[in-house]
Parts: sequence; C-alpha cells; structure tokens
Amino acid sequence: MYGSTMQRASPIDFYFDFSSPYSYIASEWVEALAARHGRTVDWKAILLGATFQAAELKSPVAYPLKREYALRDFERSARFEGVPLTMPPKFPVPTQNAARVFWYLQSVDPARATAWARCGLRAYFARGVDPSDAVALEALACEFGLAPGEAERIWSDPQWKLRLRQANDAAIAAGVFGAPFFVIDGEPFWGNDRRAQIERWLEQGPF
Amino acid sequence: MYGSTMQRASPIDFYFDFSSPYSYIASEWVEALAARHGRTVDWKAILLGATFQAAELKSPVAYPLKREYALRDFERSARFEGVPLTMPPKFPVPTQNAARVFWYLQSVDPARATAWARCGLRAYFARGVDPSDAVALEALACEFGLAPGEAERIWSDPQWKLRLRQANDAAIAAGVFGAPFFVIDGEPFWGNDRRAQIERWLEQGPF
Repeated sequence: MYGSTMQRASPIDFYFDFSSPYSYIASEWVEALAARHGRTVDWKAILLGATFQAAELKSPVAYPLKREYALRDFERSARFEGVPLTMPPKFPVPTQNAARVFWYLQSVDPARATAWARCGLRAYFARGVDPSDAVALEALACEFGLAPGEAERIWSDPQWKLRLRQANDAAIAAGVFGAPFFVIDGEPFWGNDRRAQIERWLEQGPF
Repeated sequence: MYGSTMQRASPIDFYFDFSSPYSYIASEWVEALAARHGRTVDWKAILLGATFQAAELKSPVAYPLKREYALRDFERSARFEGVPLTMPPKFPVPTQNAARVFWYLQSVDPARATAWARCGLRAYFARGVDPSDAVALEALACEFGLAPGEAERIWSDPQWKLRLRQANDAAIAAGVFGAPFFVIDGEPFWGNDRRAQIERWLEQGPF
C-alpha cells in the first residue's frame, strides 16, 4: 500500500558455524525462503565450540553410536534438500579465522559478509577446502576478492578476535546452543530440520 | 497380482520410549504413513535411559540452554503435526513398567501391544497419566482391558523384565541411541523430524 504505516517484518537471525554441515545445508535455502515471505536474513557467524561449552554439549560426532548416524545423516539430509555435500576428511575443524573475516566484512558491507559465508561453507562442504588451513583459507579469500594478505591481517587483528567473542557471547545470551539456529520474531528454531516449521511460521505467524 | 512372487515390503522398525514426547508425536503418524505405502510397523518399546548410557548421551532437558528450547519445541512440534500434547509436570519419568506390559502383550498379540503403546503415550502426554505411578498405570491398564492386578503381575515378572532388557540390548546393537528411531530397509532415521525423509524413502526408495 502506498503510504502505508505497515511495519516491516523483522529480519531472521541466522546463526551458523563454518564447520557445521547442517548450517551449510540451511545456508543454501534460508535466503530464498526469507525472500518469499518478505524477510531479510541477519547472518551471524559463531563458534559452535563456545556455545557447546556454555550448554555443556559436544558435537554429535563426539558420541559413540550417534557419530556413525550423524555422518550418514549429514549427507542424506543434503541430498534431501538437493545440496551438494561430501563430508571432508578432516571434520570438524576450528573456524575462528573464517568467522573473523566474516565479522570484518559485516562491518563494511553485510551483503558481502553473507556472500563470504556462503562461499566458505560451500568451499568446505562441496570442494573440501579446509577453513582451518591458513594457506587454503587465504587462497579462498583471494578467489573471493580480498587482496593478497588481507584475510590473514584480519584474522590476526585483535579487533576482529574481540568482535567474534562478542558474537559468541551474544548468541549464548540469546539462548543459542547449536547451529544452525534461527530466531524469528523472538521464536527460536534449532536445526536444518526445522525448515518446515519456519516456513509455516513465516506464512501464518505463531502456531 | 494373483499368484505374484512379488516380495512383501519389509516392516518399519519403530523404537519408542513411553516418556518421549517426540516418540508420542511420531506414534500418531507412523501407522498411517506406513499403510499409505503398503508397509507395516514393528513397534519396539525401549528405555531411553539404557540407550543414552550406551551412547554416553543424556536427555535434552538435562542440559542448560537446550532444556528451555526443548520444552518449547516439544509442544510446538506437536501443534505442527496436529497432535494434542501438554507437557506433564513430572517429566521425564521411568517407563519400565509400561514397557514390560508392552512386551507381554507383544508376545500374545502384536496389534494389542501397539494399541497399548498408543494408549500409554496418549495418556501421559495428552491427559497427564504418569506411567511411573503404579496406581495410575494399573488403572490405565484396566481401562485398556487388562484384568485387575494383571498389569502389576506382568511388570513384576522376571520374564518380562528380561524381555525388556533384551529389547534394549537389541536396540543398542542396531545402532539406536535415541527415540523415536526408525529402521527402514536397513536405513536408520532418528527423530520425529525425519518424517519428510522417511516419506520420500517410502515413496522412492533410497535417495
């Protein structure tokens, strides 16, 4: 409506870790789903290690029995969503460097940070580019468009180390204990497998 | 086809615990879903405590942060599936007595065991009938059609105690670490939220 005072729908908070396969799968559908319902997405790179510690949890692959299932389910869930995923031989890996680059880009241009998030997740899970390998990550950043040496300067900078710690603390304060984690209109949804519930929420509101 | 040599599709193994809200939700859709695809369901009552111990896991409500989310998600997931659920004030509770009655009935008439499973899950999650309360469980069993005192005789009988332990051991050997847990044509699916993947598997086979 012209001149309407209708409030803009609030963005979807989307918490992810660069080493989380379910985050990767969700990263491939969250933007289109949000756009279909007139929403934007606030991407938030976090470290699952920090949220696991706060919630006294561990990765699903750290447990007997659950590990074998999880490795199978990562790939099956990706096929189910039509997303290319091959579990990297080294998994999970530390992702603070990729996340610090994310928060730097986010301070400059959020759309570019989102593009870096999608680039990093796809590189790791579809092409086996290990974000914990400084040489591989630097090469990926150059391919993405950063200047040579820029990524490493960012991830070594105390300012972006601090920014990531703040992001982890804010996530924990918001109740985040895993990834992907979505907060929509204050309602928390955990996991790639909450897609159908998120879709209903966006269509109909609270149910 | 008359005289066809077509193999019957194998049953769906459905592992549940009488105190698992996600098992309850799945128990309300699994039979209809299986029937639509020409399958039957082999219900298997287990104790989550036993599988958690084998897999070094705990209930989601045993963890900080995750607890608050889980309690919210149980009820939201039930509303999403159109299943009436009110979290009982005492939760989770020990369910070995209800499970032993299940295995007794299963030895006599599997359809009756399934009916008991659905009756027990609904009673706890829709009406607050606590299966760990001997008086309440005995009353529920009478309402279900057992003779007065019969349920208690069954759950005190070493034969049905042993049968339940065997069921737990078999579940752990099959890789079960939570509930609901489904095994279809050898493929494991964990959680009420794997419904869409199960549906695709039943429609199309492996994906």
